[in-house]
Amino acid sequence: MVGGGPGAFIGDVHRRAACLHGDVELVAGAFSTSPTRSRRKGRELGLLRARSYASYQEMVKREQALPGGERIDFVSIVTPNHEHFPIAKLFLEAGFHVICDKPMTVSVTEARELKRVVRRARRVFALTHNYTGYPMVKLARDLVLAGDLGPLRKVVVEYPQGWLATRLEKTGMKQAEWRTDPRRSGGSGCMGDIGTHAENLVEYVTGLRIVQLCADLTTFVRGRRLDDDGNVLLRLQKGVGGVLHASQVSVGEDNALAIRLYGERKGLEWHQETPNVLQVKPAAGPLEVWRRGHPYVAERSAAAARASSLPAGHPEAFLDAFANVYRNVSDVIRARLARTSPDPLMLDYPTVDDGLRGMLFIDALLASARSRAKWTRVPAR
Amino acid sequence: MVGGGPGAFIGDVHRRAACLHGDVELVAGAFSTSPTRSRRKGRELGLLRARSYASYQEMVKREQALPGGERIDFVSIVTPNHEHFPIAKLFLEAGFHVICDKPMTVSVTEARELKRVVRRARRVFALTHNYTGYPMVKLARDLVLAGDLGPLRKVVVEYPQGWLATRLEKTGMKQAEWRTDPRRSGGSGCMGDIGTHAENLVEYVTGLRIVQLCADLTTFVRGRRLDDDGNVLLRLQKGVGGVLHASQVSVGEDNALAIRLYGERKGLEWHQETPNVLQVKPAAGPLEVWRRGHPYVAERSAAAARASSLPAGHPEAFLDAFANVYRNVSDVIRARLARTSPDPLMLDYPTVDDGLRGMLFIDALLASARSRAKWTRVPAR
Amino acid sequence: MVGGGPGAFIGDVHRRAACLHGDVELVAGAFSTSPTRSRRKGRELGLLRARSYASYQEMVKREQALPGGERIDFVSIVTPNHEHFPIAKLFLEAGFHVICDKPMTVSVTEARELKRVVRRARRVFALTHNYTGYPMVKLARDLVLAGDLGPLRKVVVEYPQGWLATRLEKTGMKQAEWRTDPRRSGGSGCMGDIGTHAENLVEYVTGLRIVQLCADLTTFVRGRRLDDDGNVLLRLQKGVGGVLHASQVSVGEDNALAIRLYGERKGLEWHQETPNVLQVKPAAGPLEVWRRGHPYVAERSAAAARASSLPAGHPEAFLDAFANVYRNVSDVIRARLARTSPDPLMLDYPTVDDGLRGMLFIDALLASARSRAKWTRVPAR
Amino acid sequence: MVGGGPGAFIGDVHRRAACLHGDVELVAGAFSTSPTRSRRKGRELGLLRARSYASYQEMVKREQALPGGERIDFVSIVTPNHEHFPIAKLFLEAGFHVICDKPMTVSVTEARELKRVVRRARRVFALTHNYTGYPMVKLARDLVLAGDLGPLRKVVVEYPQGWLATRLEKTGMKQAEWRTDPRRSGGSGCMGDIGTHAENLVEYVTGLRIVQLCADLTTFVRGRRLDDDGNVLLRLQKGVGGVLHASQVSVGEDNALAIRLYGERKGLEWHQETPNVLQVKPAAGPLEVWRRGHPYVAERSAAAARASSLPAGHPEAFLDAFANVYRNVSDVIRARLARTSPDPLMLDYPTVDDGLRGMLFIDALLASARSRAKWTRVPAR
Repeated sequence: MVGGGPGAFIGDVHRRAACLHGDVELVAGAFSTSPTRSRRKGRELGLLRARSYASYQEMVKREQALPGGERIDFVSIVTPNHEHFPIAKLFLEAGFHVICDKPMTVSVTEARELKRVVRRARRVFALTHNYTGYPMVKLARDLVLAGDLGPLRKVVVEYPQGWLATRLEKTGMKQAEWRTDPRRSGGSGCMGDIGTHAENLVEYVTGLRIVQLCADLTTFVRGRRLDDDGNVLLRLQKGVGGVLHASQVSVGEDNALAIRLYGERKGLEWHQETPNVLQVKPAAGPLEVWRRGHPYVAERSAAAARASSLPAGHPEAFLDAFANVYRNVSDVIRARLARTSPDPLMLDYPTVDDGLRGMLFIDALLASARSRAKWTRVPAR
Repeated sequence: MVGGGPGAFIGDVHRRAACLHGDVELVAGAFSTSPTRSRRKGRELGLLRARSYASYQEMVKREQALPGGERIDFVSIVTPNHEHFPIAKLFLEAGFHVICDKPMTVSVTEARELKRVVRRARRVFALTHNYTGYPMVKLARDLVLAGDLGPLRKVVVEYPQGWLATRLEKTGMKQAEWRTDPRRSGGSGCMGDIGTHAENLVEYVTGLRIVQLCADLTTFVRGRRLDDDGNVLLRLQKGVGGVLHASQVSVGEDNALAIRLYGERKGLEWHQETPNVLQVKPAAGPLEVWRRGHPYVAERSAAAARASSLPAGHPEAFLDAFANVYRNVSDVIRARLARTSPDPLMLDYPTVDDGLRGMLFIDALLASARSRAKWTRVPAR
Repeated sequence: MVGGGPGAFIGDVHRRAACLHGDVELVAGAFSTSPTRSRRKGRELGLLRARSYASYQEMVKREQALPGGERIDFVSIVTPNHEHFPIAKLFLEAGFHVICDKPMTVSVTEARELKRVVRRARRVFALTHNYTGYPMVKLARDLVLAGDLGPLRKVVVEYPQGWLATRLEKTGMKQAEWRTDPRRSGGSGCMGDIGTHAENLVEYVTGLRIVQLCADLTTFVRGRRLDDDGNVLLRLQKGVGGVLHASQVSVGEDNALAIRLYGERKGLEWHQETPNVLQVKPAAGPLEVWRRGHPYVAERSAAAARASSLPAGHPEAFLDAFANVYRNVSDVIRARLARTSPDPLMLDYPTVDDGLRGMLFIDALLASARSRAKWTRVPAR
Repeated sequence: MVGGGPGAFIGDVHRRAACLHGDVELVAGAFSTSPTRSRRKGRELGLLRARSYASYQEMVKREQALPGGERIDFVSIVTPNHEHFPIAKLFLEAGFHVICDKPMTVSVTEARELKRVVRRARRVFALTHNYTGYPMVKLARDLVLAGDLGPLRKVVVEYPQGWLATRLEKTGMKQAEWRTDPRRSGGSGCMGDIGTHAENLVEYVTGLRIVQLCADLTTFVRGRRLDDDGNVLLRLQKGVGGVLHASQVSVGEDNALAIRLYGERKGLEWHQETPNVLQVKPAAGPLEVWRRGHPYVAERSAAAARASSLPAGHPEAFLDAFANVYRNVSDVIRARLARTSPDPLMLDYPTVDDGLRGMLFIDALLASARSRAKWTRVPAR
């Protein structure tokens, strides 16, 4: 692991998610840019002293020097956004597989370059857009792709949070600090941090790309340097329209990512905070509440079944979904190490292409926010 | 009553809402443009034969000719949109008070002219934006105006319906026919029919005007002549941003009008389909579910208390809210007839100004939908 | 109307429910045992002075003396419980149809006697167990009777309220006073007032009688003379088991009547506070949320369709359900007056038999509460 | 670990829950009574061959023979119920700490004996009544014990499941087989399996013991040998009344454990399937929805704060709660190994006393079910 030192939030999530299924072990890390803090964290995590590195550069070098069976199989990058690119590049080019937190980079240029690096290195690269790890999101995707909804017409995706409603970044809170700092976060705050999750969710579930958008980004908290709220009109492929809104100043909301889809025949609705159910809404007939863990779910979505570990009514949640991303990626890595073909279901995780889509989306948002024209194009790649 | 003949939906709602509190009586009407059908409806409703008129013109003339105590006190106009203006004008100028269904007219020009007519006639004119008749909407408004939420930042209002997801207007269904006919409905379909309810709800609850908007209107059902879906970015006074989306092709949705507001200190959420509760979301502290009928609601909103007839837990709903509009207006008319001053709380009903706002909103939507510029201004009046 | 004077709650509900559909008119009443107060209420309600009576005895006599077309067609009895019997008897024997609030009487003896009176008088007698007036309750009954759930196994019915959690009856609140007074309320407080609604709901929806019960009744508020809470084990016909619990000291609850049924194939769930939906729960397959107003509801329940006046998503609630009881009864009375046969669907309202069942239930509850034996039998009639 | 071989459900849950926080490692096990299957499972789990034992007897002997730092620190017992006692006894007397699945034993006699064994062995013994591991359950307990609700009056606890609505035990499903087999499950089916969870939840949250009960247990599925449904009246200490009902034939229900408490001042409500929220219901004032992860929760419950790993809105669920039991127990064991005093918060896990309470509860249920007397006493210990 690179990043995830004292005070970090997402590093610990990655660690627990990776190990949830009992087949991944954390053995090395460069947890902080401070060598002392990195070592302290390593000790806390029970690592061998020799494998708590002072920097990711040192880590790459030393791990590469280890015999094949002893070195790390992959690295998880959980630093602030601006470091994703150089770290990922270094590890990939050194022959390691990479799992990287989102958003993938801080620019489209970096994202495109990273895609080339991945291709050349022939290594596995995964992005932890963890919300697509939820079984009911996978069911949603499978129902859509199977045509249950009929041709799609409209999507409404939203991601309201309230935790940045005040200037938290001035209170010493590390999470808030880097997320509102253009240097470390990239050109967008709220939309880069969570808007991209919404974008990824839409494109994952619909199988369609956003092709045009019209954005109104706002910074409500005085003195903040990046957007903390955004409202966006969407146009997707095949004439699908939509709305995306995200916010980190929607007081009283925690992490209320939600998606609604409407096709010619049926609608769908899913809420991240109650993730074990998916609403399916036929044009005629009762609204259906599909519940994770049942055979009727497995029948319609092998991906949902594979992503589900507990019986119905024994709720799974954030960590289980995050672990599903790790499980698929690590199974693919394991297949690579064993020189076998991975089960196609294992390939269901976000890749460098999703990461590039995210950066193109942010880029288009920022361009639209500055533009007086209604529509801004989002390139395919 | 003018309109509301056989096959109509809203006429019956007006009749029951008007009479719910036992102090309004239906005594005359021109229910259809067909004299036979009008008379039949009148008979069905127990009216005297003499007061079931063949046309609204006849009705005005005959009612005017009756002695003061015997003639109607006010008229309810429940025809398709394009007839609202001429009928309202005629009755107002003949000295009658008017309650009119929404949207008020089919153009801004008509709306402005009607406003002048109302002013000159010095008569009561009310518009049945019935959703603001709900007690919990009135509570929301009072909490906002009292500053509980702090300065507002964002509003999300939505109105998904699914009933027009197919070309219902070709099946002989009267409701669908006129709503999708530009001649009778005006320049907008979905947005004129329900988008204006959403607009009215926003402006009522926030006390702020929408000053700019950016609209993407779509007609999804092939062959339909008016929009059946719309997504809109909003900018309100005082820097408040927002999103409004409405649809009549969101399959599986019934009448899911909902509003969320976020201020610096608190958020609010209300859903029309479960109207007896209002969620209040403090930045810190548990989410609160305020329930209609409790003293703590009455303490914060005299308007909500007045609009509430049943104890908590004995749910009120659509008809009760509609009746609240009628109750306030009829109390004001009664006060006028008695030459007394109405209680200020009675004045809480939608007026010709709200009707004009609705038309300006539709006008701006249509202009924006055609425009390549991002923002379209919504004039104040 | 008899009862429903100043300060009463349910009288006003009856009046509005009766008139909601526009075909019932209040023309006479004895609203209070004080002639002055009765007359005042009559004036307030717009009655002719001559028909605001000083007592129900006077009312019967004078109305009987009116010519056939002028006298009342039926009377609504909305007094405290102990007066139901003598008033109903008097009116029935004088040839009037009767609609009576629940519980029907204050003893099984009275209830059985009233049943004989109704039979002899050959008049319509209806009881306002209003909760069975909800369309989705009617749908539930029709699904059960059609065998959708398979043979029933278990029922859970509950009715928690919290308004009597303190000694409200000592604060001068009229509602609380008579409901906690054994002389006016009968032998039970909470169970007589709302437990009987739960019992009626169970027997209505299942079509089965409770045959045995085991009750634990408690008076939690010190100084109160009747039970304010009760927990009951149920055994119904055909081996169906169940639980019924009701309370008026469940703080924080408003009027949370709810029922769940489980058959061999499916379960059902309905909540009075969100009455427009019925949950249907198949053994395999998604949970279904049936929503009032849709054709798929009408297809399965003509009674639900008849009881529904507004389109889906335009919520109906307490008053609409109450009005459905009145509508069926008044349609039956109207048929009687017209010497025609009523549509069988009109006969769907609670009768003197339901009233007797309620009294037998209360009687068994009180016997069980005093008994050391586990099971107490509930006679069929 | 003892038990948890191929086809088992709860073994895998224990394994993942134990390791979730990264400080417990599975190193040895006797996973099946078949040595081959045990070894296969061990290999699957990555254990050393030498530590996959053919029987728990072998495991105790061999582990005891290992040097202090190498042997297991504690054992998790996840076999069917009838084996809990002998295994736990053996390991305890051999000096190992024990974590045992529930119900603790198959008789009160065994439970009392086990309590003596634990006392004599001076070892840690924990029972995985996992539902008390949820943070919001801990918050509930802390609010109750702090007196927020005022003196308690009533509790309603329910645990409906539907998975055994048909004779699943005849289809070869292992879970269903032993749970419906008196020899392996003990004298009760449904109530032993899940009724005890409900009982434990009530006693944990209220801090009160059930002192009397009246039970109606039923076996609905023909041919089944143990109860699959039960309805129970409860009397707790301090005059608190209540209802407990549980079922494994409530079709359409998954794992709907829920509890409601009513005190003189406030009520509480919690549902296992949406575990991140706790409803608090004041007598006057809005209903409050407390959400896991917020400072206002931590302020009222250090136990809830300690049991919570993710920020608000990032839902935790079944596995996280299960892991909380393991975390507290393993922290206590670690403290014992380090000869330090555990933080009092760590002691918040179910013990042998809770296990004995569960057995006394089952015993009283079975006695009551057979009895014609209304009330059956539940001994304190």
